[in-house]
Amino acid sequence: MLFSNIDYLTPDFGIAHGFVGTEGASITYLGDTLPEQPERFGECYDGRGKVLMPGLYNTHTHAPMTLLRGYGENLTLQDWLYKRVFPFEAKITDASTYPATLLAIAEMLRFGTVSFTDMYFYSAARIRAIEESGIKCNLCDGIMVFDPETRFEDLPASEENRTLIRDYHGAFDGRLRIDLNIHSEYISNPFVVRSVGELAAELGVHTHTHISETRLEHEECKERRGGLTPVAYFDSLDFFRAPCTAAHCVWTEPEDWEILAEREVFVAANPASNMKLASGFAPVPQMLDAGVNVALGTDGMASNNNHNLFKDLYLLATIYKGSTGDPTVVTPAQALAAATVVGARSQGRPKSGAIELEYRADLVVVDVQTPWMQPVHDQVSNLVFAAQGSDVVLTMVDGTVLYREGTWPTIDVEKALVATQQASDAILASLLPSR
Amino acid sequence: MLFSNIDYLTPDFGIAHGFVGTEGASITYLGDTLPEQPERFGECYDGRGKVLMPGLYNTHTHAPMTLLRGYGENLTLQDWLYKRVFPFEAKITDASTYPATLLAIAEMLRFGTVSFTDMYFYSAARIRAIEESGIKCNLCDGIMVFDPETRFEDLPASEENRTLIRDYHGAFDGRLRIDLNIHSEYISNPFVVRSVGELAAELGVHTHTHISETRLEHEECKERRGGLTPVAYFDSLDFFRAPCTAAHCVWTEPEDWEILAEREVFVAANPASNMKLASGFAPVPQMLDAGVNVALGTDGMASNNNHNLFKDLYLLATIYKGSTGDPTVVTPAQALAAATVVGARSQGRPKSGAIELEYRADLVVVDVQTPWMQPVHDQVSNLVFAAQGSDVVLTMVDGTVLYREGTWPTIDVEKALVATQQASDAILASLLPSR
Repeated sequence: MLFSNIDYLTPDFGIAHGFVGTEGASITYLGDTLPEQPERFGECYDGRGKVLMPGLYNTHTHAPMTLLRGYGENLTLQDWLYKRVFPFEAKITDASTYPATLLAIAEMLRFGTVSFTDMYFYSAARIRAIEESGIKCNLCDGIMVFDPETRFEDLPASEENRTLIRDYHGAFDGRLRIDLNIHSEYISNPFVVRSVGELAAELGVHTHTHISETRLEHEECKERRGGLTPVAYFDSLDFFRAPCTAAHCVWTEPEDWEILAEREVFVAANPASNMKLASGFAPVPQMLDAGVNVALGTDGMASNNNHNLFKDLYLLATIYKGSTGDPTVVTPAQALAAATVVGARSQGRPKSGAIELEYRADLVVVDVQTPWMQPVHDQVSNLVFAAQGSDVVLTMVDGTVLYREGTWPTIDVEKALVATQQASDAILASLLPSR
Repeated sequence: MLFSNIDYLTPDFGIAHGFVGTEGASITYLGDTLPEQPERFGECYDGRGKVLMPGLYNTHTHAPMTLLRGYGENLTLQDWLYKRVFPFEAKITDASTYPATLLAIAEMLRFGTVSFTDMYFYSAARIRAIEESGIKCNLCDGIMVFDPETRFEDLPASEENRTLIRDYHGAFDGRLRIDLNIHSEYISNPFVVRSVGELAAELGVHTHTHISETRLEHEECKERRGGLTPVAYFDSLDFFRAPCTAAHCVWTEPEDWEILAEREVFVAANPASNMKLASGFAPVPQMLDAGVNVALGTDGMASNNNHNLFKDLYLLATIYKGSTGDPTVVTPAQALAAATVVGARSQGRPKSGAIELEYRADLVVVDVQTPWMQPVHDQVSNLVFAAQGSDVVLTMVDGTVLYREGTWPTIDVEKALVATQQASDAILASLLPSR
């Protein structure tokens, strides 16, 4: 495709105007003028009144939890988890995972997300949805262990993850990657944490985990682990030897930020989820100052409640001004970096997340000829503070259009909507006490 | 119009299903079954896959400041005000106010707002935009005074506001109301505050003001006014004798909440603006507990940056969970009440802000047959936490459709977009130092 006469976001988060051409999965032309042989790019897209930007990277979610959207609101964390989330989740299967994941992907594509990191179970169903839809995903198949002595090799997840990596890491032209995961410090043990880190380094895959989401989790870890915070605990087991994305990090401390920066851990900030569950405001400004790589995630639909990363982008750029009292923290450029290029790096996707020659053609077109995106004093500011996810009119992954003006070429959205509601209804019915 | 087979929001924030008919400016039918003589309602609207809800009330903004959208981001309040906002605003005229106000109205209608409270100058241009567009507005014509001794009668604003009220209060079938306003404690004096409160009571109009937006403003008031907070100061001058909407109230104290509740003052919470300018988080949960009427506003476009009240609705229901650590504060029902029926009351609009017989037909249709609004466990939760303003497919004011699926029957949006950009460019050019 040749995006013509279009404003586009530059790697330094400025705006340029001109022509952006894609061939195959890559950006092959950038310039002020029409390229020679413009027909080689295929369709010529009229970019007037539009802004082209890199696709967004959602670096933390649980797509099948779309089944739980709106189920269990305004509850304490304990009631939310034990009365709603856990009983419902126990009934999720491959059959319900497939349409819910497709629905999550449709939503992500509609709001400009080109790739997501997904921690859950029922990987066969998720992989099918990823393969069919054309989106990119770093998929984690849940590794959870409650016993303090169990070794990784003794868990079924050990073999299952090795098989997943052998069969699917790099599949679908590299769209699918497998990350190894530890759920969290409290649903793992030191043996498993060490082994998973070793295996990831050995196999050359990334890791993913939850860290310090709640104050309770953070403090209980310190009690359990001789004063070590979750970050320090993971580090003491050399878990960060492979590139790791740590979700939340809300209650991390200054010493943690040093470790996260030094070990080049990626933090997936989840501002919407952390607010809704009353977990707090992650120290994003402080982590950025400390040199930590901050990426962005939506988290699952029981706590967000949507996969609209433009909303989280806005929140990332806004809430810390409120929570710190300093209106200069988290610049639009830092927020955009988190949602794009840093996210791509966290997923181990080279030449991705920016509009540059030879970069992957993971692109989003935003309509700016609307009452809420005008006038234009600063297009970048408008993208961060005024744009709605719904302003996305085209989402392209590896050069293929996966969403355009109300249509999803690869997804039967109507069918997925019906199937998801049916699956959700069936789960709810099975949860009702028998009479 | 007859909304058929539609889910609709009930006054107690539940969901009913059935038929809602409007005739003229009112809701004249509510029922489970098709009414007799359905043709008397005019168009039959197929409500399947949709939710009908009351239109939203934006109880605090400055529509002409749409000219400043994205102008001056990530600055300290002083730099924002003195280097950007004030110099730019000094160049705004009637000519630039008109298209900018139309654009703001188009945006509000697109995102489901049926009425707004607007504090600014250049009222002739704003009134023209309000008249033509068909939206409702409580309009305030700025009353500002820096001298501590000046009496209200000596201000040109005194005569101007009396004339406005005489000529326009209740105009356009009641769509336009004039509120008297005091900018704030710090841009007024006790004589003017007392006189404006007296005049409002005498003429039967509402008042509007800014209160305790920043900590500095709050503390300086206490220094200046013998320890009185802005709320206590206004109350000591009997300003609240007429129904008052006080914007922000971020730094109000427990004693203030008692006064606000007792005097039935409406607080216009502006969560997006307060975060972006780093003013803080208003004590909304505490004010609700104290019985204060909390309504909702966007504030102007230099600090939000859009008139999408669905975003502020989401923020109102979410950020206080983050700031207080309690996930149960500000329920979806409280947030919806703020955005609808409480807002309508703050504007002195009887039988408005809810779907009930004989209520005004100020209605919004939300498309819920989308990947981000399914499955449905709780339609109300989905409306608050998952809906996007862009899910609005129809906005009706007094029974007249003013927005529908990308079209604004009363506004030439293209023309307003061009005129606003030109006006903004001209102001910027005039601000450049001559060479």
